[in-house]
Amino acid sequence: MIKKTFRFGTAIVDYYFAGSFAQLKELADVMTTVLLTDEHVFAAHERRFKGWNSIVLKPGEAYKIQATVDSVIGRLVELGADRKWTIVGVGGGVITDLAGYIAAIYLRGIRCGFVPTTLLALVDASIGGKNGIDVGPYKNMVGTIRQPAFLLHDMTLLQSLPEAEWRNGFAEIIKHAAIRDAKMFRELEVGSVDSYRKKKAALADLVQRNALLKTKVVLADEFEGGERRLLNFGHTLGHALENQYELSHGEAISIGMAFAAKLSQQRTAFRSAARLVGLLDRYGLPTLATYNKDKVLPVLSRDKKKEGASVHFVLLERIGKALVEPIPLNELSDLL
Amino acid sequence: MIKKTFRFGTAIVDYYFAGSFAQLKELADVMTTVLLTDEHVFAAHERRFKGWNSIVLKPGEAYKIQATVDSVIGRLVELGADRKWTIVGVGGGVITDLAGYIAAIYLRGIRCGFVPTTLLALVDASIGGKNGIDVGPYKNMVGTIRQPAFLLHDMTLLQSLPEAEWRNGFAEIIKHAAIRDAKMFRELEVGSVDSYRKKKAALADLVQRNALLKTKVVLADEFEGGERRLLNFGHTLGHALENQYELSHGEAISIGMAFAAKLSQQRTAFRSAARLVGLLDRYGLPTLATYNKDKVLPVLSRDKKKEGASVHFVLLERIGKALVEPIPLNELSDLL
Ligand SMILES: NC(=O)c1ccc[n+]([C@@H]2O[C@H](COP(=O)([O-])OP(=O)(O)OC[C@H]3O[C@@H](n4cnc5c(N)ncnc54)[C@H](O)[C@@H]3O)[C@@H](O)[C@H]2O)c1
Ligand SMILES: NC(=O)c1ccc[n+]([C@@H]2O[C@H](COP(=O)([O-])OP(=O)(O)OC[C@H]3O[C@@H](n4cnc5c(N)ncnc54)[C@H](O)[C@@H]3O)[C@@H](O)[C@H]2O)c1
Ligand SMILES: [Zn+2]
Ligand SMILES: [Zn+2]
Repeated sequence: MIKKTFRFGTAIVDYYFAGSFAQLKELADVMTTVLLTDEHVFAAHERRFKGWNSIVLKPGEAYKIQATVDSVIGRLVELGADRKWTIVGVGGGVITDLAGYIAAIYLRGIRCGFVPTTLLALVDASIGGKNGIDVGPYKNMVGTIRQPAFLLHDMTLLQSLPEAEWRNGFAEIIKHAAIRDAKMFRELEVGSVDSYRKKKAALADLVQRNALLKTKVVLADEFEGGERRLLNFGHTLGHALENQYELSHGEAISIGMAFAAKLSQQRTAFRSAARLVGLLDRYGLPTLATYNKDKVLPVLSRDKKKEGASVHFVLLERIGKALVEPIPLNELSDLL
Repeated sequence: MIKKTFRFGTAIVDYYFAGSFAQLKELADVMTTVLLTDEHVFAAHERRFKGWNSIVLKPGEAYKIQATVDSVIGRLVELGADRKWTIVGVGGGVITDLAGYIAAIYLRGIRCGFVPTTLLALVDASIGGKNGIDVGPYKNMVGTIRQPAFLLHDMTLLQSLPEAEWRNGFAEIIKHAAIRDAKMFRELEVGSVDSYRKKKAALADLVQRNALLKTKVVLADEFEGGERRLLNFGHTLGHALENQYELSHGEAISIGMAFAAKLSQQRTAFRSAARLVGLLDRYGLPTLATYNKDKVLPVLSRDKKKEGASVHFVLLERIGKALVEPIPLNELSDLL
């Protein structure tokens, strides 16, 4: 187990890389801790939960809602959880977002930690302190920004991860490489989902580098505005598509990244759109979609990144270097 | 209008004393602000709300719950409130607690301000950044600690305040004087609810000094543990009584303060219990109650201030000086 400690504002977060679930006992007291997880994770790893207080939720984004928060709070009260307790989210991004949010508001804030069990949660959702829930059709409408006390990585939890979730995670990894790490991009170009699944050490190394990359971006800009916006690469169009079509998040942002890469070729010196499209394709991610412009454009312009009559888009200058540029809505309409 | 600015951790809070509601326009943009209030306040001051987006809630502690939060968030979404909006709580402590909480979680935090309309909210609830809601029988079970951007005092709003709410406010004012300000205590001894209601300037001065007193205690200890615990004077027994008997918060803590004063005489050099009881009495507050020890004691020992087999009690050393002492539960049982 490798420990690295980061300070976000006044919060201290311990990252435990290359750890094992069993080491959770060193980070949280069994008597005053509750593990929050979902049925898929619990079913695949039931024996690891033995001896811990656990709350097992229905899986999926549809349950990242207030009704779930209400029921978990009811359970915490039943368990007699007081200010000295810890909540540990053991799951994908839905679980870490819920666990972080509930820990932020229960008794005005109790300790929490995450054991991410999806590739996406390992490299993205568990990092940066954003948490929250959806409200009706609106994603992450309610939440807080608050860091967990610790992150514990156990790669063996990924053994049960479905194929589609690997692709979702790689979409964010490719995003990281595209905006910040040309070397990682080149490595990904010679790898594949399968090769990483087979080579444990290479996967652990890739996950760790991605977690650190996101951490550095967040540290440079904890409360968003500058650096952190670069993490939205592919997400502006991506979110609009995800909302309206039956696409997973990874698929949606993959299409969004491909679009943003082409837009970058028109508006910056970027010349590697084909390389990015090739890499996304290599990891089983879609890069083209037929969508209805008249449905997508209104969503884009309602987007939080709107400002006046233009939409802020993250573009690439080259592989490994991104920037934010306002694109007038009428121009965007022509491009779509 | 007198402006004072305080910094709590990284948050900056502007206090506007001796202001008027009309000046709210200088602090928040009419187009991107929503006022949160309750039916009593709205009915008594309806014309002041003209021109503002308003959400009017049912009054009372019974509505300081998640269902209210859900409905307000629904309204914010309908209004199209984005990250640039401000929520202003115009009301008593129920409203400022709700407004502060909703502003803390909506879109992971938007700007908020308070216009306190009860004496209690002016001198206590609006200050310190604690916010939240009740869960079933548990008060303030869910919430955050987050400072508002501003507080605006308009004493004319108190004209409609019911008699009983004046007494509730004075209970906290007497608490402040007892733990921290012997001079204020002596002034209160020659005043009365009626005299303060009639003398606007004296009231405004008293309110301002109390707001500053609580601010200083909180500043000395933003996240509780030391200084801030002194504000619990009278509240340990008070909360236990309030939960179980039909007492207002002011009445309950008044009885709690009288009890703590007598306990102080037994355990410290304190000799002024009769003076404190006399002052509470002067402000129409009860100091004795017949209660069932067997009902109250279990609540006390479940209290958050519990530690091992003793309860932390705030005691007085003299008028104007408090301290925290652990009282073994068995001793407490004899004293009750
Ligand atoms: N807070 C942030 O900064 C941030 C960043 C990105 C994404 N997110 C959020 O993360 C969520 C998406 O994360 P996700 O893709 O991990 O979603 P998820 O938690 O829904 O997990 C995806 C699926 O995999 C299952 N699963 C998880 N781990 C498993 C395992 N080890 N074995 C078998 N099945 C497993 C889950 O039950 C679920 O069905 C979204 O709600 C998104 O908003 C948050
Ligand atoms: N956040 C904190 O640090 C803190 C501290 C102390 C108390 N509190 C909370 O504050 C609440 C109690 O505050 P409160 O006593 O102000 O309660 P409240 O908001 O319920 O107000 C009391 C009553 O007075 C009415 N009212 C308010 N202003 C009025 C006006 N100007 N004219 C006529 N009627 C008016 C209200 O409608 C209500 O009926 C509790 O929920 C308590 O938990 C919070
Ligand atoms: Zn994403
Ligand atoms: Zn009180």
